[in-house]
Amino acid sequence: MSLPAEFHEIAKRVNNWGRWGADDELGTLNLITDAVVREAVATVRTGHRIPLALPLRQDGVQSGLIPGRINPLHTMVQINQEIFGPATVATSDDTVTMGLQAATHWDALPHVSHSGKIYNGRPADTITAHAGARFSSIAAVEHLVSRGVLLDVARARGVDRLPGDHAVTPEDLAAAEEFGGVRVRAGDIVLVRTGQMRLALAGDRDAYGYPSPGLSVRTPEWFHARDVAAVANDTLTFEIFPPEIADLWLPVHALHLVEMGLLQGQNWNLEALSTACAEEGRYAFLLTAAPEPFAGATGSPVAPVAVL
Amino acid sequence: MSLPAEFHEIAKRVNNWGRWGADDELGTLNLITDAVVREAVATVRTGHRIPLALPLRQDGVQSGLIPGRINPLHTMVQINQEIFGPATVATSDDTVTMGLQAATHWDALPHVSHSGKIYNGRPADTITAHAGARFSSIAAVEHLVSRGVLLDVARARGVDRLPGDHAVTPEDLAAAEEFGGVRVRAGDIVLVRTGQMRLALAGDRDAYGYPSPGLSVRTPEWFHARDVAAVANDTLTFEIFPPEIADLWLPVHALHLVEMGLLQGQNWNLEALSTACAEEGRYAFLLTAAPEPFAGATGSPVAPVAVL
Amino acid sequence: MSLPAEFHEIAKRVNNWGRWGADDELGTLNLITDAVVREAVATVRTGHRIPLALPLRQDGVQSGLIPGRINPLHTMVQINQEIFGPATVATSDDTVTMGLQAATHWDALPHVSHSGKIYNGRPADTITAHAGARFSSIAAVEHLVSRGVLLDVARARGVDRLPGDHAVTPEDLAAAEEFGGVRVRAGDIVLVRTGQMRLALAGDRDAYGYPSPGLSVRTPEWFHARDVAAVANDTLTFEIFPPEIADLWLPVHALHLVEMGLLQGQNWNLEALSTACAEEGRYAFLLTAAPEPFAGATGSPVAPVAVL
Amino acid sequence: MSLPAEFHEIAKRVNNWGRWGADDELGTLNLITDAVVREAVATVRTGHRIPLALPLRQDGVQSGLIPGRINPLHTMVQINQEIFGPATVATSDDTVTMGLQAATHWDALPHVSHSGKIYNGRPADTITAHAGARFSSIAAVEHLVSRGVLLDVARARGVDRLPGDHAVTPEDLAAAEEFGGVRVRAGDIVLVRTGQMRLALAGDRDAYGYPSPGLSVRTPEWFHARDVAAVANDTLTFEIFPPEIADLWLPVHALHLVEMGLLQGQNWNLEALSTACAEEGRYAFLLTAAPEPFAGATGSPVAPVAVL
Repeated sequence: MSLPAEFHEIAKRVNNWGRWGADDELGTLNLITDAVVREAVATVRTGHRIPLALPLRQDGVQSGLIPGRINPLHTMVQINQEIFGPATVATSDDTVTMGLQAATHWDALPHVSHSGKIYNGRPADTITAHAGARFSSIAAVEHLVSRGVLLDVARARGVDRLPGDHAVTPEDLAAAEEFGGVRVRAGDIVLVRTGQMRLALAGDRDAYGYPSPGLSVRTPEWFHARDVAAVANDTLTFEIFPPEIADLWLPVHALHLVEMGLLQGQNWNLEALSTACAEEGRYAFLLTAAPEPFAGATGSPVAPVAVL
Repeated sequence: MSLPAEFHEIAKRVNNWGRWGADDELGTLNLITDAVVREAVATVRTGHRIPLALPLRQDGVQSGLIPGRINPLHTMVQINQEIFGPATVATSDDTVTMGLQAATHWDALPHVSHSGKIYNGRPADTITAHAGARFSSIAAVEHLVSRGVLLDVARARGVDRLPGDHAVTPEDLAAAEEFGGVRVRAGDIVLVRTGQMRLALAGDRDAYGYPSPGLSVRTPEWFHARDVAAVANDTLTFEIFPPEIADLWLPVHALHLVEMGLLQGQNWNLEALSTACAEEGRYAFLLTAAPEPFAGATGSPVAPVAVL
Repeated sequence: MSLPAEFHEIAKRVNNWGRWGADDELGTLNLITDAVVREAVATVRTGHRIPLALPLRQDGVQSGLIPGRINPLHTMVQINQEIFGPATVATSDDTVTMGLQAATHWDALPHVSHSGKIYNGRPADTITAHAGARFSSIAAVEHLVSRGVLLDVARARGVDRLPGDHAVTPEDLAAAEEFGGVRVRAGDIVLVRTGQMRLALAGDRDAYGYPSPGLSVRTPEWFHARDVAAVANDTLTFEIFPPEIADLWLPVHALHLVEMGLLQGQNWNLEALSTACAEEGRYAFLLTAAPEPFAGATGSPVAPVAVL
Repeated sequence: MSLPAEFHEIAKRVNNWGRWGADDELGTLNLITDAVVREAVATVRTGHRIPLALPLRQDGVQSGLIPGRINPLHTMVQINQEIFGPATVATSDDTVTMGLQAATHWDALPHVSHSGKIYNGRPADTITAHAGARFSSIAAVEHLVSRGVLLDVARARGVDRLPGDHAVTPEDLAAAEEFGGVRVRAGDIVLVRTGQMRLALAGDRDAYGYPSPGLSVRTPEWFHARDVAAVANDTLTFEIFPPEIADLWLPVHALHLVEMGLLQGQNWNLEALSTACAEEGRYAFLLTAAPEPFAGATGSPVAPVAVL
C-alpha cells in the first residue's frame, strides 16, 4: 500500500520545499511580514478581546481514542504552604501532565510525515525519543501574531453546525469569504468554523470526535493559492473524518504540514467569535496565538485571542 | 511569629478588595479596558515582534530548590507512527510534565496567601488538591493583551545586570521611565529588567536563582499609584532575594497577589527587547501574554510577544 | 449529615488505635511476625509462582470516573540512543505518569479518613500537598511477605462471578474457608475472590467498575476476630458498590483503614490463582506483596506473587 | 567507530541466543525453576525480612545527568476529599511521574542494544515510542522469587566502601563467596555489594554517581559460568564508571542484557542486608523482587525483600 497518485499530484502543486531556503524551519509563517502585522493591527476597531481556547481540564475533549494523547492532569504540589515558617506568606504551586495535542493546540510541522519525509524534505527520522523533533519543532515558532480571518462556513450556510459528513470545500471557503465581506490574503491566519465544537461544549466528546465535518483534501490548494500563514478550526480531526477517499488517512495533514509547511490548529472554540463577528459584521481582526516553546515538540497548547 | 506591622500598613494602602465588587476574580486586570487596548494597538510602528519566553526544556531554570517545581519533561508518545497501516501518513505526538511556575510564567492571584486569605478576602482554603483554586485561578484570565512598557532599570543605570543585592525601588522605576521617555499609566503591563536573566542564558542557573536583584517591598505602592494591570520581570524570585527585611519572606508577592490582585510574571527574557527598545528609542509597545487556561491552576507558562 | 450510629458501633468493636502504641504507623501489619513468615514459607510445596498483578497499561481498569486516578501513561525518553557516540552501546529509557491507586494496588492507611481522623487517631490534616501523608504512608510498609489465603467465594458458591449486588458476608468467608479446607489466622493476608475481574479481563471496564460485588460492612468484624494482616480482592471498589446502606459510602474502607489500621488491596487478578488452588486442593501459600516505597503516598501499585 | 574485538570475543563466549528457543523473552530467568524456588524457600531460618529499596522521593539519586531519568514527583490529586458529600468518608489519592530507571530498579533486557540487536537477536527497532519494547519488556517478567546470594565484596575486603576506581573482578566475586561461605549456583539472584550506596545515604548524590566502583567487563563470564538468573548491586551505573577500556561504554550492560539475557538491578540498598548477613554468618536467603509489569517498558522500580 502507498499513497494514491491523486495525493501526489496535489502534493506537487502545493509543495513549498526550498521556497524559503534549504534551511527553513518555518514554512508559511515566513509570510507574516512586519507589513502584514501592521495591517493586522490596523483591523482593530473596538479593542474587544475574545479568547479561543478551551479550558485545560481533565474532562477535556480527548476520549482515549488517540493513544497517549491524555487530557491535562493538573495537580497541586503545594497548597498554602508556609515554606519559610509558621505565619509567613504561604504559597501554592501546581504541576501538569498532558498531551501537547490534547486541547486547543497548534500542530508543529513535523507532527506528521509521509514517505519518510517531513517539511522541507528533511528525513522523518530526525525525530527521536531523546530530543524530539530536531527541525521545525514548535519552539521554532517564537511568536505568532497576524491578521485573523474567520471563515464561518456554518453560519454562511445558515446552520449551527455542519453535518458530520460535510467536507469543507474551496467553494465553501469562498462562500464564507463573500458572506463575511472579507478576502483572505497572504500571511493571514484563517479560522474555519464548522460549529462542531458545539457538541464538545454540550459535553458529548464522543460525538465531537467523529464523524466530524472538516477540511476537504481539495482545500490545501485554495490555502496555497492565497498564501495563508496558518489555518485552525473547531474540530478534533481538522479534516473530515472518516476521510473522503477510502484508505487515504490524514491527507490534509500531510499536504499542509509536510508539503506546504503550513501550521494547523485544532479544537479552537470559535463560538463566541462567530457571534461577535456576526454582530459587528466584520470577519478580520488582530489574532495573537503564540505556542508555548516546548523544545523538540511536535505541538503545543495555545491560548489564542482575537482582538476586534 | 506573624507578619510585621510595616507589612500590614503597606497592605492597607494598596488593598483593592471590593474595588471591582465582592465577586471579582480578576483584580487589576479589570484596568485593561477596550480603550486601553486600542491605545496599546496604536503604539505599534514597525510590526516587529519579539518573543519573551525561555524555551521549555528539561535543563530549564529550576535547580531543584523549590520543591515540586520541575523543569519540563517532554516525551514522545508516537514517532512517525503509521497508525492507519503501513505506508500511510505517519504521526508524532508528545506529552509534557512540568511545574506550571517552572519557566516563563504568570502567577495567578491565589499563588500566595497570607493570614488565611487570598485576593478579595476569600479564604485560602478554597484551594484544594481536588479542584485547585476555586477562585481567581489562571483560567479566569481568558485573554491578556495590553500596552507593555519596559522599565529597563539595568540599562538606565548603565549596567548589564544589577548586582544580586539590589532592591529595585520606586526611584529606580521612575528613573527608568525618564530614561525611556515613557510614562506608565492605568492598565499597562510593566516589564522590569534587572539583567539577571543573563546568568541563566549563560547556563548558570544556580547563580541566576539567588542572590537575586528584584522588586523592593516599596514598589507595590508605586504600581498601585499608577494602576498598572500586571508586572513581570527577568528573575526567578521576582522580588529581591534574600529579602530586604529579616524574616519577611515574599512580601511583594503578598502585596501584589493578595492585597492588590495584581498578576505577576517571572523568568521573562527581556534581553532582546532591551536591545530593540534601546535601538528604537521607545519603550512602549503592544504586548500579548495570555496564559494557558489551566482550570484551577495557580499559575501558567506564557509565551509573551512584544509587537513594536 | 454524619456517619450513622450503626457505623460508629462497629467502629468501636474493631478499633485498634493504641493497640501497638501511640506511635504506631503499621496497624495490623504488626501481626506479621517472624514466626508467621516461617509458617508462610512452610506452606510452599511445588515452588510454582503465580503473579496477581494486572499489566500496567494506558487501557487499564480506570474509566475516568474517579477524578485524577489516571491509567499508566508510559513514554520512552530514549530509544536505542547512542549516548556516548556512534556505534556504541545504545540505551532505551522510560518514564511513567500514573495514579498510584489506578491498577493492582495497596491502599495505605491514610487513603481514607473520617471525622477528621486517620489511623491511630491522628489528625487527617497531617496529609498535605507538600509532603503527602506524614504518618502511615505506603513507604512505612518496608516489606510485605506473609501467608496468603485465598477465600474463593465465587468458586465456593459454584459461580464464575458473583452478581453485582452480592455483598460478601462473614458467612461467605466462613463457607469459603470450609470449601478450601483452610483456616484464616493471625498475620494472614486474605485474598477474597468475587470473579468480578473476569469483566475487566474481557475488556469491559465500565461493567467491571460497578455495580460490583464486594465486602459487606459486616466483614471487618470477621477480619478483626481473626486478626488478619491485610485483605485484597479482585474489584475496583473493594466493598460492594453501590453501598448496602443508603448514604453510607465506603464504610469498609473507613473501618479497615482508619479504625483497624488494616491494609487493603484492590484490582488483584485472582483468576489463575483460583484455578491453581482448585487443582491442587489447597488455599494457603507464601505471598510476597511489597508496595513501592513512595514517600508520603497513600497507595502504591504492587506486583504480588503467590508461591505454591 | 565500533565495538572492539575484545568485546565481541567475550560476547561469543557468553551468548545465550536461542538457548531457550527463538521465541524466548526471559533469558536467564528461565534458570529459576520450581526446584530452585523450593531450595530458596529452604534457606529461610528466622523469617526476618530486610527491604532493599530506596524510598521513592523527589530528592532521589538522580542528579540530572542522565537525560529524562527524573526522580519521582509525587503529587496528591485528592486530600481528605468528601467525594460523596459533607461529613462522609473522605479520600486521598496520589499520582506519580518518574523515570522507570530512576530509583532501585531492574533493567529489562531491551534497556540496551548494540549493533542493532537486543536479546535473542531481535532487531533493536522493535522498540518504538508508540508501544515501547515489543519483546522482553519488563512486563514479561511476571514474577521474580529465587534464592538470593549476597557477595559482599566491600566487607570481604575489609572496607566500608570500595574506591571509585575499583573494578569488581571474578576474583573479587570468588573471594566474597569464600568470605560468605556460600557458593553461587544456577538460578541464583546475585547481589554484589560495593558500599557505594553509603555516599547516597549520606546525601551526596553527585559523589554516588561517579566515579563509581562496579562490575568489570570480565565478570559476565563468571556469571555465565555459574548460570545466575540475575545480578543487582548498590551503584548508579552497575559497572565501573568511567569504564575500564577507553571508549568502550557500558560493555557489561551489553553483555548481560543483549548477549546473555540476564536481568540487571541498580541502586539497591544492601547496607542493612550486609549487617544482617555478617551477624548471622550466612549469605543466602529467599529473595522476592518482582518488577511492576509496565507494558512495553525497559525497566521498572522494584521493592526487593530478603527473607532470612
